[in-house]
Amino acid sequence: MTHLLDQLCVVMIQTSHAGNIGSAARAMKTMGIHDLRLVNPKQADSAEARALASGADQILDQARFCSSLQAATADCHYVIGSSARSERSLSWPQMDARRCGEWVAQHLQQQKIAIVFGRERSGLSNEELQQCQALVHIPMAVTGYSLNIAAALQIIAYECFIASQSLAAPEPNHELDEEPATMEAMEHFFTHLETTLIEAQYLDPNNPRLLMPRLRRLFGRITPTRSEVNILRGILSAFQGKKFQRRSS
Amino acid sequence: MTHLLDQLCVVMIQTSHAGNIGSAARAMKTMGIHDLRLVNPKQADSAEARALASGADQILDQARFCSSLQAATADCHYVIGSSARSERSLSWPQMDARRCGEWVAQHLQQQKIAIVFGRERSGLSNEELQQCQALVHIPMAVTGYSLNIAAALQIIAYECFIASQSLAAPEPNHELDEEPATMEAMEHFFTHLETTLIEAQYLDPNNPRLLMPRLRRLFGRITPTRSEVNILRGILSAFQGKKFQRRSS
Repeated sequence: MTHLLDQLCVVMIQTSHAGNIGSAARAMKTMGIHDLRLVNPKQADSAEARALASGADQILDQARFCSSLQAATADCHYVIGSSARSERSLSWPQMDARRCGEWVAQHLQQQKIAIVFGRERSGLSNEELQQCQALVHIPMAVTGYSLNIAAALQIIAYECFIASQSLAAPEPNHELDEEPATMEAMEHFFTHLETTLIEAQYLDPNNPRLLMPRLRRLFGRITPTRSEVNILRGILSAFQGKKFQRRSS
Repeated sequence: MTHLLDQLCVVMIQTSHAGNIGSAARAMKTMGIHDLRLVNPKQADSAEARALASGADQILDQARFCSSLQAATADCHYVIGSSARSERSLSWPQMDARRCGEWVAQHLQQQKIAIVFGRERSGLSNEELQQCQALVHIPMAVTGYSLNIAAALQIIAYECFIASQSLAAPEPNHELDEEPATMEAMEHFFTHLETTLIEAQYLDPNNPRLLMPRLRRLFGRITPTRSEVNILRGILSAFQGKKFQRRSS
């Protein structure tokens, strides 16, 4: 059953302390998660990181370095952001850690899922939040306090592992008999959508308000398939009055 | 509800790295646990411990230093050892982390409970194991590997917190209308028992085998009340042919 978790990856954004990356690798290994992606870490490797990884060197060795969250999740179908706060103006779909584990275990069969951890102090930027389809938080006894990033990862990884174990026989997916769109395809779609809305003068680029975030959330909830995204983009192209060139993405 | 966890304490035995004590304090605070007891730590306080405690200084400041596990748990009624391995020759009552959280939440109303974490490398000694009534382990994806001690504590503390929260209205205890015996009272009992068995030449102190560990497990499972222990000791004294002097313990 453990191979189910091969479809799960962890993304850490601009991590300041290499020690936290080492601890994260160890936490991942204990729970059978191996795919680590590092977006612009301040310091990726060090003796401290290796010491704290304590036998999870392979995860560090194979970690992918990425220039942005978008690049890190290009091959993923669903992105879950880890968040300490109940989120701002727009209410993202929220899950607590246990529900997240259950959700992940149920959906890994059909989807590649990323769980994203923001900076130690400031978490995820608004732009990064918009690339998440859902947020996960860990219930805590105190407000205004936070878990260490590796400790948060440990709990979420634990919940994913426990849930994937208790998933005796995963149900075949009757809803989607087709692969969901990758995040890369979704980003192309959102860019296309934004351009089209600007061209249509529905979206003012100098005063965009929350239009795109709202649309991202909306389409994020749908989790469209690859061909559905092609259809949506075909519609946009039609609005643009030109033929949609089908791309490799 | 959180005050329920005031009855829970964490014991760390001969911790080598002060940083782990700091991380443990932070993990405890996130989950509403405040009572930390340190048995002969190699190094208890340091800049690193304070940095990793990150706002949980009060737990470090109020941590109690103890000379042994026995001293650390003298006022507790139930001691749960954290263990990576499925335990040796004698099979202790075992719980996984989730069950442990549920058990702790259910019993904190009537009992003061200690969760014990052994040394980073070697865990709990056999002697210390014998002072535990049960063991808790965290399910893992890999065998022969282990969680960092603060990460293990984070998961167990999280499970205790979640379970204590979901305990809507704790059931009154119909089984025990009397306080269970403290560990100190139990230790006096075991010492008394051992002495009596040696005097009776049932136990050979030069070749004790597993007799005492077996008896510890047996009585540990019962969780006797204070007056029951007095009765047991009265019986031992009767076997010894002298009147049992009731002690303050």
